[in-house]
Amino acid sequence: MLAADPYAANLGVVVDTVTEDQIVVSMEVTDRHLNFLGVSHGGAVFSLADCAFSLASNSAGRALAIDTHLVLTAASRHGDRLQATVRELSRGGTLGTYRAEVTRQDGRLVGLFTGTVHISGDS
Amino acid sequence: MLAADPYAANLGVVVDTVTEDQIVVSMEVTDRHLNFLGVSHGGAVFSLADCAFSLASNSAGRALAIDTHLVLTAASRHGDRLQATVRELSRGGTLGTYRAEVTRQDGRLVGLFTGTVHISGDS
Amino acid sequence: MLAADPYAANLGVVVDTVTEDQIVVSMEVTDRHLNFLGVSHGGAVFSLADCAFSLASNSAGRALAIDTHLVLTAASRHGDRLQATVRELSRGGTLGTYRAEVTRQDGRLVGLFTGTVHISGDS
Amino acid sequence: MLAADPYAANLGVVVDTVTEDQIVVSMEVTDRHLNFLGVSHGGAVFSLADCAFSLASNSAGRALAIDTHLVLTAASRHGDRLQATVRELSRGGTLGTYRAEVTRQDGRLVGLFTGTVHISGDS
Repeated sequence: MLAADPYAANLGVVVDTVTEDQIVVSMEVTDRHLNFLGVSHGGAVFSLADCAFSLASNSAGRALAIDTHLVLTAASRHGDRLQATVRELSRGGTLGTYRAEVTRQDGRLVGLFTGTVHISGDS
Repeated sequence: MLAADPYAANLGVVVDTVTEDQIVVSMEVTDRHLNFLGVSHGGAVFSLADCAFSLASNSAGRALAIDTHLVLTAASRHGDRLQATVRELSRGGTLGTYRAEVTRQDGRLVGLFTGTVHISGDS
Repeated sequence: MLAADPYAANLGVVVDTVTEDQIVVSMEVTDRHLNFLGVSHGGAVFSLADCAFSLASNSAGRALAIDTHLVLTAASRHGDRLQATVRELSRGGTLGTYRAEVTRQDGRLVGLFTGTVHISGDS
Repeated sequence: MLAADPYAANLGVVVDTVTEDQIVVSMEVTDRHLNFLGVSHGGAVFSLADCAFSLASNSAGRALAIDTHLVLTAASRHGDRLQATVRELSRGGTLGTYRAEVTRQDGRLVGLFTGTVHISGDS
């Protein structure tokens, strides 16, 4: 699905691994991800986590994101590689909740993401 | 500041108005903002609100985002124009909290954003 | 509805005003609301906002809270009176989103709340 | 610390286990935790998680909660026993972030909590 996602392509987000338990996506921080302070834009970190969330939540039927929360715990800079690992924590007939962690290549936690989807149909 | 923000430039975010009470930024939804379902990526809506939040929170000193929350209330599509209006609700010596609303050109509310910054220095 | 809410009664939450546009509830901070630091427990501030959210979201049909976010912007202490004012920002057939602000008697903003409900039936 | 916390006492929150990696607190759902629909009030579930968060974040110095997020994933009723397990995910000199999961006695996930504190001094 990510291959058909223009937003993910524009940001350079790629899929690393997909297993039953988790999905991992990553992105290298380049100039286009930076804000005016020279560090990764909050929106870039959010978008990486959101790509993982979107993949995980749509794998078993069409799902629309309704709520997202992101705590930013460390900065990242040009040349850093960020990885988002997402897991499904709850999924019923109409709602599903996922958590993702974004880490830097040195293992430092960069972001903590939680997202909820409304499931609107079968895949 | 937005002019020196490569991330905002990549997404086509522009500043509409800046007053003492609020800041308004906007972006036209184009192909690069879409997800694999053909609607605006949650990350794109978040990023627009985050640009407004960043401008508002850095106007009186250097501020780092530490927490962000976004509720998505309606979809947007290619050709829509999204506008984010941000207001400062609380600012002390070390923390500041801001709320932004993202609307479509037809007035429909698309997203509700809340963000908190840690203030790390003077401008 | 609040009169039939044992949780609200236990915390001393009362309804101040109900109009079409907003609902206001309040509570006096007493010993039972304090944490081990001697200030109002985050759970007490949350609960006041949640009571307002619950009243507003159930006024037009049965609604279950699915997501809540609270930023705490100032402390409150024994003898303070806290007031939560809630407004509906979005409501469709299955989802509704509300924002509440909690203030102290001196006008200081104590908490910023956002909540989303899943609407499961008519009233 | 929980023994000196009037709010926790009022809600019947007790500490189950404290280890270096996690803290577990629990509470039996009784009448005083119910809302007008007869299920546990969102504020009660939040408060349980918040007690765990408070214990964990204050164990190494005085910490003030600044941001909290709770997703509610299942209901609980009179007689249920709810347990909140909290872990520290990030802690620097001025900020710390914690995640807690609230579960029912049958293992069902009831709530997903994320909280951030501002660290204001040593213990």
